[in-house]
Amino acid sequence: MAQETIILTGDRPTGPLHLGHYVGSLLNRVQHQADTAQYIMIADMQAMTDNFDNPQKVRDNVTEVTLDYLAVGIDPNKSTIFIQSMIPQIAELTIFYLNLVTISRLKRNPTVKTEIKQKGYGEDLPAGFLMYPVHQAADITVVRANLVPVGEDQLPMLEQTNEIVRSFNRIYKTDILREVTWSKSVTPRLPGTDGKAKMGKSLGNAIFLSDPADVVAKKVMSMYTDPDHVRVEDPGKIEGNTVFTYLDIFAPDKQAVEEMKAHYQRGGLGDVKVKKYLIEVLNTLLEPMRVRRAEFAKDKSYINAVLKEGTEKTLAVAQQTMTMVKKATSLNYW
Amino acid sequence: MAQETIILTGDRPTGPLHLGHYVGSLLNRVQHQADTAQYIMIADMQAMTDNFDNPQKVRDNVTEVTLDYLAVGIDPNKSTIFIQSMIPQIAELTIFYLNLVTISRLKRNPTVKTEIKQKGYGEDLPAGFLMYPVHQAADITVVRANLVPVGEDQLPMLEQTNEIVRSFNRIYKTDILREVTWSKSVTPRLPGTDGKAKMGKSLGNAIFLSDPADVVAKKVMSMYTDPDHVRVEDPGKIEGNTVFTYLDIFAPDKQAVEEMKAHYQRGGLGDVKVKKYLIEVLNTLLEPMRVRRAEFAKDKSYINAVLKEGTEKTLAVAQQTMTMVKKATSLNYW
Repeated sequence: MAQETIILTGDRPTGPLHLGHYVGSLLNRVQHQADTAQYIMIADMQAMTDNFDNPQKVRDNVTEVTLDYLAVGIDPNKSTIFIQSMIPQIAELTIFYLNLVTISRLKRNPTVKTEIKQKGYGEDLPAGFLMYPVHQAADITVVRANLVPVGEDQLPMLEQTNEIVRSFNRIYKTDILREVTWSKSVTPRLPGTDGKAKMGKSLGNAIFLSDPADVVAKKVMSMYTDPDHVRVEDPGKIEGNTVFTYLDIFAPDKQAVEEMKAHYQRGGLGDVKVKKYLIEVLNTLLEPMRVRRAEFAKDKSYINAVLKEGTEKTLAVAQQTMTMVKKATSLNYW
Repeated sequence: MAQETIILTGDRPTGPLHLGHYVGSLLNRVQHQADTAQYIMIADMQAMTDNFDNPQKVRDNVTEVTLDYLAVGIDPNKSTIFIQSMIPQIAELTIFYLNLVTISRLKRNPTVKTEIKQKGYGEDLPAGFLMYPVHQAADITVVRANLVPVGEDQLPMLEQTNEIVRSFNRIYKTDILREVTWSKSVTPRLPGTDGKAKMGKSLGNAIFLSDPADVVAKKVMSMYTDPDHVRVEDPGKIEGNTVFTYLDIFAPDKQAVEEMKAHYQRGGLGDVKVKKYLIEVLNTLLEPMRVRRAEFAKDKSYINAVLKEGTEKTLAVAQQTMTMVKKATSLNYW
């Protein structure tokens, strides 16, 4: 029996979304929402694991991220947007699942290992941070999602989810929990404006979807190109030239880009000219988003209603899941 | 400003309650319920941490433990009996608190350390087991309890709770969480029928509150006394003689016990005679409990109603607590 595909995706509300999010996931969400059930989780509790001393930042960014969603064209009538902390069943499932996972297994998770090193936790590793993959298994299974679009670096998280799903179904002799598959983004990862491999909120190398036109222009003008391309008449390199990487991804006129590349490589095309073209391309993409964002931002009660309705819809599904879990574990009292 | 005293106490539903529970805590609860707000938690989720592969045992013992409560005279109109897993706010608070505690701190908990060794977990330590002190902090704070009667071996658990309470109140600049004090039981710990220091459900040395009269008689007849007291006419020892320890605790006629002790020490009083007296004493204590238990056991819907009402009352308080916590952490959306 073929089962319905249910997608879970989402973001940590720790800052505004940027072009990396756009090509890496937001665009896919806009496309998927037409024909697939899709939950978009604003992961405020996950954000709290490393921002517990700054909850106001998390709170404020819940609104900002929702505005970004609406700006890019996520339609709350097609996608279910919900706030993680408002679904108590996620916490309840996490507590259940924590019994099925050992501490040494959690410590072996490569994604968590890398992040622990990056954050320099050492001996002061917060329990919530180590537990997080178990919490994610709860996020996914509470809405009975079976498809989670993530980057390859997040695959160990999904493996942990599937281990928990299999343990649960085996121990409680049930099939209520679904294993999850991932769909790899076809778009290559967008580098930062500094040419570094990853665009990141906190790396100072991001172009945000909500950046005004002049800020985009300024960020593009300072972008990393070919450091050996000093004079206009010199031949320039395309490989590793971030401006051309962006043009390949964002410029709709592929032929124009190919012509510029050839010109740049044989010499006679200056960085400023290429950058001005990219500014035009990006602002053409971002301008309608800015307009929609400004429109939605005027009406805070609408944003609230979107979040509330999505959360209530998710709650109803979460309650069903919890009822099934309690029945499977015999802890269904009344 | 003096604040109301609120007690949280409870039991893991992993087996019937015994005389050790009776003198160590149940009797206190019956006394406290007259003048103090008292929550009694049936800790099914805690039981799951080391019984996750046998949930039916946990489920069945929820009813058995409730019957034991009613049998000893806990009055559901005075004490609030609730089922832990039915309060989702406990799970939600646990997730919040996990951010405030480090893994190394959890591993230093002496009670947990001892239990890990006893259970022989080694590298396969379930995450839920290590986390348990954090879950307990949620149990306690969700009903805003400030008094938790526990054995001295459980003090590190309360210290962990108070550390979490202080961290939370400091980080979120609030005073909504209350620190907890403990009240030490005045009764010495009841040894097992085998003379070992502790009576335990799983140690085969317990007299259960629900044991029929003939089972009590049989268990007392095989009790540990003075191994050197071979012939009736020999002098016997009182120290470490479990039968006399029990008589000291349970016999209402203290003078009769003192006379028996003197007789036993100078010789001429046989073990059988002393044991028969103890059987009489214990069955006099237990008989009214058995009668009440049998009465309540006839009406499963009453047991269910007791648990449901207590749980609903607790839910209302838990919701208030969660509202305060969400406000303090800025994660109050609507």
